[in-house]
Amino acid sequence: MQTITWDTPFVRQVLASIQTHKPFIYGLTNYVAATLSANVLLAVGAGPAIGPALDWPEHFASGARGVWINAAALMSADIDALERAARAADQAGTPWVLDPVAFGAGAPVYDAAVRGLLVHSPTVIRGNASELIAFSGGDATGKGVETTAQTSEALGAIASLSRQAGAIVAVSGATDYVASGDEIFAIPGGDARLTKVTGAGCALGALIAAALGAHGDPLEATLAAHALYAEAAARASGQARGSASFATAFVDQLSLLEPELNAR
Amino acid sequence: MQTITWDTPFVRQVLASIQTHKPFIYGLTNYVAATLSANVLLAVGAGPAIGPALDWPEHFASGARGVWINAAALMSADIDALERAARAADQAGTPWVLDPVAFGAGAPVYDAAVRGLLVHSPTVIRGNASELIAFSGGDATGKGVETTAQTSEALGAIASLSRQAGAIVAVSGATDYVASGDEIFAIPGGDARLTKVTGAGCALGALIAAALGAHGDPLEATLAAHALYAEAAARASGQARGSASFATAFVDQLSLLEPELNAR
Amino acid sequence: MQTITWDTPFVRQVLASIQTHKPFIYGLTNYVAATLSANVLLAVGAGPAIGPALDWPEHFASGARGVWINAAALMSADIDALERAARAADQAGTPWVLDPVAFGAGAPVYDAAVRGLLVHSPTVIRGNASELIAFSGGDATGKGVETTAQTSEALGAIASLSRQAGAIVAVSGATDYVASGDEIFAIPGGDARLTKVTGAGCALGALIAAALGAHGDPLEATLAAHALYAEAAARASGQARGSASFATAFVDQLSLLEPELNAR
Repeated sequence: MQTITWDTPFVRQVLASIQTHKPFIYGLTNYVAATLSANVLLAVGAGPAIGPALDWPEHFASGARGVWINAAALMSADIDALERAARAADQAGTPWVLDPVAFGAGAPVYDAAVRGLLVHSPTVIRGNASELIAFSGGDATGKGVETTAQTSEALGAIASLSRQAGAIVAVSGATDYVASGDEIFAIPGGDARLTKVTGAGCALGALIAAALGAHGDPLEATLAAHALYAEAAARASGQARGSASFATAFVDQLSLLEPELNAR
Repeated sequence: MQTITWDTPFVRQVLASIQTHKPFIYGLTNYVAATLSANVLLAVGAGPAIGPALDWPEHFASGARGVWINAAALMSADIDALERAARAADQAGTPWVLDPVAFGAGAPVYDAAVRGLLVHSPTVIRGNASELIAFSGGDATGKGVETTAQTSEALGAIASLSRQAGAIVAVSGATDYVASGDEIFAIPGGDARLTKVTGAGCALGALIAAALGAHGDPLEATLAAHALYAEAAARASGQARGSASFATAFVDQLSLLEPELNAR
Repeated sequence: MQTITWDTPFVRQVLASIQTHKPFIYGLTNYVAATLSANVLLAVGAGPAIGPALDWPEHFASGARGVWINAAALMSADIDALERAARAADQAGTPWVLDPVAFGAGAPVYDAAVRGLLVHSPTVIRGNASELIAFSGGDATGKGVETTAQTSEALGAIASLSRQAGAIVAVSGATDYVASGDEIFAIPGGDARLTKVTGAGCALGALIAAALGAHGDPLEATLAAHALYAEAAARASGQARGSASFATAFVDQLSLLEPELNAR
């Protein structure tokens, strides 16, 4: 299994490409996670728009360079808005990320609606271990949006889901793993305090969408987004007391990452 | 009147119980307050889910260990979602917290809808002085969500409301008071900058729900949540410049509280 | 062109008036920006309420001392709620601020709905350069909510829009400009990191509404709000690492501004 870090050359290329092209990224997410997601995108130089206003799902999903749909957007939007955004992205060839947050946590109508989005061919599916195990057909083990499984327990699930859905599948946790068909990559690092910051997973989905919108190779883009997240978390670690100052330091470090070699 | 602080033994027991059991807590609140509430729950180890998506109100309110309903959820949900969540919690025996935010501030249709939730027997009702004076039948004196009364002026109102509603009633401000029938307890401390952090009251409701979900005695749970809040605010005081860094330091300190004696 | 700064005498008078009168300010905005807007209002001593709950638009818009409507509120409210709030503010003589965020960014149904709000005579229209150039009838050049034009390129557009709409028009960017008919004022300063904080523009609209609600002269109120923003940003500059700690330091400094001479 190959390991990807900040020192893997294409990671900095992807960051440079985001900073240069400033891709416009459209997202549907829930209000709990929206502000952090927007700030993560702004930190790396992308331009975010979030929300299902009027005719935005179609217009913005087809006009954006990348789209992410966090299924918890269903808190303040109906499934129709998500369907329209996913369909518009798919038809326009805009890469899009599906985050089936809280899948398998006990709401079957919700789960069915989220699964229905797969017909619009997401480029990447990302989530935590519990969500992706459930989404791939395994037993639901989550409590709301918190996982009760380790990412290493989800390796079979993400590979299986990648083959089923024809998508890149990424699971985040202490170590992140990304599956593309039968290939699996590991991205180590991060900081456990990231699990105490609401929306941190959703914002990773937004960053993946930005990377997809700025870099031609979807697998490299997905891996790079995870490696950028891990690097910013590692740099933030020594600058924080508890969970809230960690969140601040983490976004700070994302905004300060420089793609040039020796810039550290 | 008994005073409760971090040094009251059951306070640390409640914190230990939250950290051990990591209760899943479901909330309906407004988007202004949602992110802070989620981060407060994550800071103490609880697992939050927030929002009225599809069939979540019933499923999550009956499956959660605690529920809080901030009436300002009516900003992005209709009253039906709140009714369904309150009814489901009541029928499942899940303890739930009602926060009648902005009650009496000038919107009679809103006030009537909020009052209607009382039939579902909230375990705890919490708010600021203006809101609870109005909710207990007194004159409305608030401006939006800001109070214009001192908590000590609300002692009669919270005792009366506690008897009327058969609920624990808690008022927060410079000194917090909690009424259970004719008994009233004081929780001193906190920091005035907390009144400059939007959603701080709502997030206290979330923390009460987490305490209710982890500890068998609802009165002790309610008192402990207030004492944890006051302790974190006191520890944050010296670490902050203005209102925003205070919010960061406050959540940090919640995430760093250790229930063990001598852990300070 | 006159330049307005923290040292212009009426700026401190406006701040003193906000801190003394603590005006109740009602806003309709999107959930991405709502929390920062509320915290900015609380930082200067105003009392915020945000959201379209039930009959709040009419009651709160007519009862508030100032109202701001960020058109991206359409993410979680329908146009009818915005219409009702704008009409109620206009009929009650409550000053109100229109922020046509993302106008001209590619969603014509949205643009038409936003333009329709002009019949309710906003006191102030504020936005970034791309939005205001498009709103005044020029070419749309924005990508979502990010501008692609300099504020100095918008001077003709804001003067024209001011005359057309009979409103004060303010454009924010590296240097802010405010037009009242043919007069244009400059407010220099700020910090580029403010453009990496989501909702910073929307929260400026909220602060303008607070200034309008506390000070009798709408032009001075609008100029003062911009100068307070620039001063807080300048004071925050040395206290921050990246974009997130800048946001924290900025709100801190707003909460610490003292109107007394020599208080710095």
